[in-house]
Amino acid sequence: MIYLDYSATTPPNKEVLKVFNKVSIEYPGNSNSLHKLGIEAKELEEYTTNKIKKILNLKNKDIIYTSGSSESNNHAIKGICTKYKTRGRHIITTLLEHSSVLETLKYLQDDGFIIDYVKITDDGIIDIEDLKRLLTNDTILVSISAIDSELGIKQPIDKIASIIKEYPKCFFHVDCTQAIGKININFDNIDLASISSHKFYGLKGIGLLIKNDNIQLNNLIHGGKSTTIYRSGTPALPLIVSTLKALELITPNIEENYKYIKILNKKILDRIKKYENIHINSTKYSIPHIINISLINIKPETFIHALDDYNIYISTKSACSKVNTMSNSVYAVTKNRDYANHSIRISLSYLTKEEEIYKFLEAFDICFRKLNISQKK
Amino acid sequence: MIYLDYSATTPPNKEVLKVFNKVSIEYPGNSNSLHKLGIEAKELEEYTTNKIKKILNLKNKDIIYTSGSSESNNHAIKGICTKYKTRGRHIITTLLEHSSVLETLKYLQDDGFIIDYVKITDDGIIDIEDLKRLLTNDTILVSISAIDSELGIKQPIDKIASIIKEYPKCFFHVDCTQAIGKININFDNIDLASISSHKFYGLKGIGLLIKNDNIQLNNLIHGGKSTTIYRSGTPALPLIVSTLKALELITPNIEENYKYIKILNKKILDRIKKYENIHINSTKYSIPHIINISLINIKPETFIHALDDYNIYISTKSACSKVNTMSNSVYAVTKNRDYANHSIRISLSYLTKEEEIYKFLEAFDICFRKLNISQKK
Repeated sequence: MIYLDYSATTPPNKEVLKVFNKVSIEYPGNSNSLHKLGIEAKELEEYTTNKIKKILNLKNKDIIYTSGSSESNNHAIKGICTKYKTRGRHIITTLLEHSSVLETLKYLQDDGFIIDYVKITDDGIIDIEDLKRLLTNDTILVSISAIDSELGIKQPIDKIASIIKEYPKCFFHVDCTQAIGKININFDNIDLASISSHKFYGLKGIGLLIKNDNIQLNNLIHGGKSTTIYRSGTPALPLIVSTLKALELITPNIEENYKYIKILNKKILDRIKKYENIHINSTKYSIPHIINISLINIKPETFIHALDDYNIYISTKSACSKVNTMSNSVYAVTKNRDYANHSIRISLSYLTKEEEIYKFLEAFDICFRKLNISQKK
Repeated sequence: MIYLDYSATTPPNKEVLKVFNKVSIEYPGNSNSLHKLGIEAKELEEYTTNKIKKILNLKNKDIIYTSGSSESNNHAIKGICTKYKTRGRHIITTLLEHSSVLETLKYLQDDGFIIDYVKITDDGIIDIEDLKRLLTNDTILVSISAIDSELGIKQPIDKIASIIKEYPKCFFHVDCTQAIGKININFDNIDLASISSHKFYGLKGIGLLIKNDNIQLNNLIHGGKSTTIYRSGTPALPLIVSTLKALELITPNIEENYKYIKILNKKILDRIKKYENIHINSTKYSIPHIINISLINIKPETFIHALDDYNIYISTKSACSKVNTMSNSVYAVTKNRDYANHSIRISLSYLTKEEEIYKFLEAFDICFRKLNISQKK
């Protein structure tokens, strides 16, 4: 099996699973209980939160534990926009965002909010001049992912933050789902950030919403106080501590992994460049972990199933988007419907072996030659 | 250690943990991915959903996987009320409900919904005549827990459902969090039900929202389609399958466990009845798993910490309620502020051993005699 869909989800690190088991057994209490078992669980919860803050270098931030980035994105956007709606009703985002951002914004649109999509340059980064034009005193939120899930384009978050800072009523939400574990993020100038553990070798069902400690947020899930006042529900302590473990394991190796994956990326792109009828959608701003290409004459689903026969797993778009529809992200960058209709994503990991790349390229070649011809007929 | 706080959370069954680990390792794919690894995960997800439906005897129902009952309660109530708000704006509930129900309803109240709290009889069950009086053609939701978390009172759900049925525009939501694994629930006449795995020896961070397949629901977490169209986010497959395992383990033993726990319950109540200055808040409708009493002269927190020294763990109220406030549930049943200010909860399990009960009663006696006198002085 050659798994090249690490941006959809990553296999959990065994050490992470071990910690999950250990906490499940050794800390059975509800960390909101008053007795010693509850207090011990609460202490571990607080220790974990502080350690996560240290690892991510979070200053003056709150951590809200969620079920994953979809919840974090929903909570961040709905929570801030409904809380501060008297300040303004204008929101700026991009067409590169995840469905949990875009659908949440559509929901707010029905509630009277106005959404603007900032232009994307041909290199995939947001058009800074267009952002400046769009920002008004009515803008209460800018939501832009640090790295999008389809093309892996790394946005200039610090630069964007410095522009937003001129509008003190405006908050900056950054979906960091694809970024954590791959690059280092500076959270200092970000008001709200979303994170999901299963994207960095942690477990499915747990994520973080990071927020400045001086801003308020309406709840998405109402009820009693839990780890914070912002999200109710029994704290999922084993999942919470497993997230710390996943961060501890991946963070020290980010730079080394990046360099290694860059080598793998080059091996793939050097070969793929030589094909006709393939367009490389990734740009110079894409991180090496994500390669997005379009096979002009081949249906993405057909190609994926052809690779399935070689036990090689890649993807069309984000696993969370609609099947058989155009990729909005690829269209936003390439402005080409053909490319947007035929894109596939190969995503790499520090776990990817060089020999896997060679085997992948071999199978790719066979499938491409076969399908490129058969579909042209 | 003598743990008598099983209603706050239960220790996970080792078999459940095993399944969680197995699925985490053997099914690393995202079940929304198109490749073989995704399809295998999707097949396991669908198999699991069908098995859960069989175990719970669900006919014509959808299962929406959530992060737990707090999310399920929020989603059920907000989802149905905002979807059908043109039908009516009146909601009926009780003061016995969990904070995730009551706070969600307060949130809707701010949005123009009218909330009525049905009267509770001295026996703790809802006053059927009062429910009939409160129901109108404007009522779109009745939300009543099958068993409340503080007094463990089992409501006559089938009877309530038959009354609501006369109002075809009105939906019936039942919070089954404390019921699953303790009694058998007939879901046939329930439109929406909330369940949380960690209450029946499953894992924290996973729950179900069960709904009739012919009713719509607005999303709480927007984004792409996941296991259903109603809740976005990467399916937490290992948690989902672990829930099936927990149900498989507990369901066949419900009746036997009930009988055993009834014996333990009697041992405790027979002794406690003899004390002066203790009022038993549990009624004849309380399930044996939950014993609620008030120590008139003793602060609940003080008593709990006294028992801590014997490594015995009981609770004041629900772990999700505010500390140092009166118990609304105990007040709703007893109509007595003293009782409501001094209540403690002892909750039992099939795991509870008879000798634990004897040790508990011994420690209880020492602590009670000491504190009852010292606090009277």
